[in-house]
Parts: sequence; structure tokens; C-alpha cells
Amino acid sequence: MARDTHAPAIPIPTDAFLEHWQGHRRVTRRVIQTFPENELFQYSIGGMRPFSAMAFEMISMAAAGIRGIATGQWDSGRELLHHSGAPAPATRDALLHLWDQTTDQINALWPQIPPPRFLEVDTAFGSYEGVIYGLLQYWIDNEIHHRGQGYVYLRALGIEPPAFYDRS
Amino acid sequence: MARDTHAPAIPIPTDAFLEHWQGHRRVTRRVIQTFPENELFQYSIGGMRPFSAMAFEMISMAAAGIRGIATGQWDSGRELLHHSGAPAPATRDALLHLWDQTTDQINALWPQIPPPRFLEVDTAFGSYEGVIYGLLQYWIDNEIHHRGQGYVYLRALGIEPPAFYDRS
Repeated sequence: MARDTHAPAIPIPTDAFLEHWQGHRRVTRRVIQTFPENELFQYSIGGMRPFSAMAFEMISMAAAGIRGIATGQWDSGRELLHHSGAPAPATRDALLHLWDQTTDQINALWPQIPPPRFLEVDTAFGSYEGVIYGLLQYWIDNEIHHRGQGYVYLRALGIEPPAFYDRS
Repeated sequence: MARDTHAPAIPIPTDAFLEHWQGHRRVTRRVIQTFPENELFQYSIGGMRPFSAMAFEMISMAAAGIRGIATGQWDSGRELLHHSGAPAPATRDALLHLWDQTTDQINALWPQIPPPRFLEVDTAFGSYEGVIYGLLQYWIDNEIHHRGQGYVYLRALGIEPPAFYDRS
């Protein structure tokens, strides 16, 4: 990430950035809803994780991430982000409930972030150094990446996924 | 996308935005390379397109898109973006060659885009209205989405995909 503050820049409104993130999260929430409950927790292709585990990773990154951005205090991420052994929800409703709690948490903490904070360099989860907006972008990209994998799971199950372009 | 230019904004350097795009494109290029040639053009899960068709869509959006941003002239996209009947490359090498040509085209046209252009509203491909930086973001997101699907294809074929986090 370039850090030359005199370079030409695209001023992306902070509320547009939030809306971009939450728009993607709404699509992912619909993907969770679209999975039959058993398949959400058990279906896998090629030895990959079931979609519930991917969704829990997204929740963990988003929840611990927004806290870290807003407060500068990062969870180590060990208990939250490790793919196995995490206290993941065991039902679709519980997963959706945690998803919605995270949505509310993001919306509550976002306005508390001073805009210059987005250009600060920090070390997310004690491990990943980067400019804050780039860390955020990484979490969004990671969600898109794994959600796309969920689309394949759904198609393989004969189920039509939600529209990628509908962020409403 | 919010358009209130007085709102707090995150000034993302234009060269960082380009690097973000090209970094993702380098990962996708490695995914194309990682597919065995036959599977690149024929392998499918759940009735989805083979990865070559997804990659050709990415190339088409990127090539026609960067031209549209830089020049204001948008291809209708009909011949470029339609999923079937497009003059797609028929070999992996030809696909990679077209990928690299697009990489060069993006790098050549990017510096010609005046920074305020990224905040203009335009209608991409004659159909998709949005702020320029948001259109770009959509193409990148679309690439991440479909590349994630390519990862599932590779895993299903027993092949380790390139690392998602390595944008070098």
C-alpha cells in the first residue's frame, strides 16, 4: 500500500466504504440462509471446510477486526480465528444471530473511528501489519473469496445461490 | 455509493488502488496457470462455467472497463461479455497471453486517468451506472468471487491452489 499522502488519491467517503462492506455482508447472510441446515455444517468439496466454518471465520475477522480498528486493541485472534476448535455456533439460526450481532457492532463502532485512523499502519490481530483501510479491504476480499466457494457448494447441491450483484 | 464530497473520506492513493487490482490479478493468473489445460476448459461443478470462461469474463471486463474509464467510450459489452459465443482463447497459453496484454493495457491507461474521473458517475458498458471507483471495485470483487470458485474446482481435482494472501 502506498503511503505517500501527497500522491493523487481517490477520496472514498467513509460511509460508502461501510456500505460496501455491509452490502457484501448482506449477500453473505443470504448465502447462509440459502444453505439447508445440515449441508451448511457438513457439506464439503475437495476436503474444504463447510460453509458454516467459512462464515464463522468471516464473523470472527469482522468482529475482532472492527474492535481493533476502533479501539486499537486487537485480540490475538487465536481463539477466534483458528479454523478448528473455535466456539462456532451449531445451528443456522445461531450463526445468523451472531452474524446480525456483528452487523450491529460494526454499525455502532464505525462512527467512532476518526477518519485519519483509516490511513494509520497497525498490526491486526498481533500478526498482520498494514494500513487500516487495506486490512479492512482484505477482510472484505476474504469474505467474497469464501462466499464464492459457498456458491459452488450450493450449485453442486442443485440450489440457486443469491444474486452476486444484489447488495440490498 | 455516497456522493457527498464534503463527507469524511479515506484518500486512497490511485497507485495503491491500481496495485490492489493488479495484485489480485496476479493471484488469478497463477490460478489459471495451476489448472491442467483440459480441466481449465472443461471441468465444471454443478453446471457452472469452466474456469477458462470465468477468466475470459474477467479479461473482458478489465480490458473494456479500463478503456471506458480512460476514454469514456464503452463497448456495449455484448460481444465481449456475453458468456457464450465469445471469441475466447482456446488454449491456456493463449488465455495467459491475453491476460498479460490486459495487464499491460491497464498499466498503460491508468496514468492517463485524471484522479477526479474516479469520482464521476458513468454508465459502464452502456448498462451499469455507478461512480467510477465503485465500478472498478465491482470488477475486482467479481474476479475475487469467481476466482474463489476456481479454488473449489482445483481442490475438487486434488490440486493445491495458490495462496490467496500472496499478491506478489
